[in-house]
Amino acid sequence: MICFYAIMSARAEPIASLETLQTPCLLLDEPRMARNIARLKARVQRLGVGFRPHLKTAKSMEVAVRLMDGPQGPVTVSTLKEAEQFAAEGVRDILYAVGITPGKLERAASLRRNGVDLSLVLDSMEQARAVVAKSKELGSVFAVLIEVDCDGHRSGVKPEDPTLLSIGRALHEGGASLRGVMTHAGGSYDTPGETALTLAAERERDVAVRSAAALRAAGLPCPIVSVGSTPTAHFARDLTGVTEIRAGVFVFFDLVMAGLRVCAIEDIAISVLATVIGHQHEKGWTIVDAGWMAMSRDRGTATQVQDQGYGLICDIEGNPYPDLILKQVNQEHGIIGHRDAAGEYPRLPLGTLVRILPNHACATSAQHDRYQVVDERRRVLATWSRFSGW
Amino acid sequence: MICFYAIMSARAEPIASLETLQTPCLLLDEPRMARNIARLKARVQRLGVGFRPHLKTAKSMEVAVRLMDGPQGPVTVSTLKEAEQFAAEGVRDILYAVGITPGKLERAASLRRNGVDLSLVLDSMEQARAVVAKSKELGSVFAVLIEVDCDGHRSGVKPEDPTLLSIGRALHEGGASLRGVMTHAGGSYDTPGETALTLAAERERDVAVRSAAALRAAGLPCPIVSVGSTPTAHFARDLTGVTEIRAGVFVFFDLVMAGLRVCAIEDIAISVLATVIGHQHEKGWTIVDAGWMAMSRDRGTATQVQDQGYGLICDIEGNPYPDLILKQVNQEHGIIGHRDAAGEYPRLPLGTLVRILPNHACATSAQHDRYQVVDERRRVLATWSRFSGW
Repeated sequence: MICFYAIMSARAEPIASLETLQTPCLLLDEPRMARNIARLKARVQRLGVGFRPHLKTAKSMEVAVRLMDGPQGPVTVSTLKEAEQFAAEGVRDILYAVGITPGKLERAASLRRNGVDLSLVLDSMEQARAVVAKSKELGSVFAVLIEVDCDGHRSGVKPEDPTLLSIGRALHEGGASLRGVMTHAGGSYDTPGETALTLAAERERDVAVRSAAALRAAGLPCPIVSVGSTPTAHFARDLTGVTEIRAGVFVFFDLVMAGLRVCAIEDIAISVLATVIGHQHEKGWTIVDAGWMAMSRDRGTATQVQDQGYGLICDIEGNPYPDLILKQVNQEHGIIGHRDAAGEYPRLPLGTLVRILPNHACATSAQHDRYQVVDERRRVLATWSRFSGW
Repeated sequence: MICFYAIMSARAEPIASLETLQTPCLLLDEPRMARNIARLKARVQRLGVGFRPHLKTAKSMEVAVRLMDGPQGPVTVSTLKEAEQFAAEGVRDILYAVGITPGKLERAASLRRNGVDLSLVLDSMEQARAVVAKSKELGSVFAVLIEVDCDGHRSGVKPEDPTLLSIGRALHEGGASLRGVMTHAGGSYDTPGETALTLAAERERDVAVRSAAALRAAGLPCPIVSVGSTPTAHFARDLTGVTEIRAGVFVFFDLVMAGLRVCAIEDIAISVLATVIGHQHEKGWTIVDAGWMAMSRDRGTATQVQDQGYGLICDIEGNPYPDLILKQVNQEHGIIGHRDAAGEYPRLPLGTLVRILPNHACATSAQHDRYQVVDERRRVLATWSRFSGW
């Protein structure tokens, strides 16, 4: 088990230099990550709400201890595997933020029996009935948040939909612990810039607070009003009525977030270290050993103003080459080229190491089973494991 | 260690039914896989060439033993990790089919010291010089194939480029074991139908054979003439002059291969089992617990005649629902909808299990650490582990 307090105060000694790593591998720039965490934590504190970081991006206890307010959480997860893994490390206050199905309630009950305060999420009467029925069958009281929809992005019941109150009543009267409401402004990933993101944050807040008010007006409990996405967390001006905020990708940031102007390129803490393995000079191609297996197939910047291909190429220090991107990927090959078809760029000889900033930190990290933690002087401070699966 | 001969003769007893699995998870339809393997092996035999299956798709010894001609190979791999993992299981004849870099030669030499006949691939004088230099430094004779380019897809030297002979001479005179030439018709993934794929296969053969002839005419050894891609392997009519064929994705097949008409939808042996977790009825959305984490972000059918979104939806038996696809994905959410915006489809209640056929078997399999091996009667026969990383 990783000790929360020991880690928070530890200073790592370098164990290697970047040049000794086998490629491709995943680099985590620790000073940048620390700045990203400090920035959002200061914001959340100013806004006067609780912070429930989403651990789906990092899937690593070493990162989690740097995100959490205390050794027991609170945290958000996207799979029961995450809940189980973090619970094994002592985390106790966990929100599983994906709609629950009957087939997963046994595992949820097992976590609760082991002392984990696991909250579930749902948005339908079918789910509420399943939770109530399974609660009686297993003798386990499930804690539940009702998911509300603030932007038509994905899941959630509309705040004015009478189903919201029906679900609340079914849960409350059925013996579940109705904890409140949660929403996620997933649509904010498509709206760049301060004005749009400030509006998205206010809409997210407004929907959550109105839903909570509706439940309370019906005499139902609603202690938690939970909102969050990395873009809205960074642009919310006022969170009156909200009790906690969730965010995940901010810990590393990525090119999509930079394209939304939530962060700068220099804030991106995650990259893939790759080696030049060949050239097709007449085409302007430099071929590296990072393909989609190392980068993921995420093309999140394809619909943004600046399309970054499969990633932005930096030198070994982490300084971006102007307009040099990963243009194509196969399984273990990546093709670097200038953003413009005919553009020229510095020669990168065989064996050159480059860092590739990813479109989407969650997707690229998920392709790797460990982080090589580096400082600003190209030194490897530690290797942190990460897990995957369900 | 997994015994080649024991596995080849084993009959598995069912261990569970599909309905008991936690979702999302990766299903492997064993009878379909067996048919896919038998079909290509029969073709290869008719064509009178050797078979060097590519293990990058499966990354599993359990699948490898079903693909290989014998317990020691031959096989193809895409990473040194694959070479090391399969070598630990007794495989001895391994082609590492991604361009070698100086920084990977120590690991390659270590495999050769441990009795593995590892062949490397390169396409430049810089690489040839690095191999020769490292060979002298480590006292290890590297076996090398020169990669030639048959369709401008990615790597390789052109057969008429004098660099081909320069590389051959540098290797041969420098003490490396020059094994021959290899090429990969990666461009065949973009050309559907029998006529185009037969042509692509003939071009692949022609380039490999001409390159081999050029080396031999210069007095250089060229015992191996290696070609291969799943599409060309299935459409080559004549392979005169070729000594071996490589192919990988055929073992599972996928929607991209079906779109190229290399296989039928009914041949696809891999799918993701997912559970319905919610609905947005007014939008025609059914939400499942398989997002990009379970499916990958691969959109390989986006440029084909029939775009399959992130996957084609089947019932629990594996029968496709007409025109029902995975239209959008987030990390752990997938949105099922009719191919046409307003199209209707059968109601899939909360908890319904569906199978989702993937665009790209290599990419989807890579998101999972195990296969749930099933038969045609929805019974789970075994769980096979797969590995990842470099």
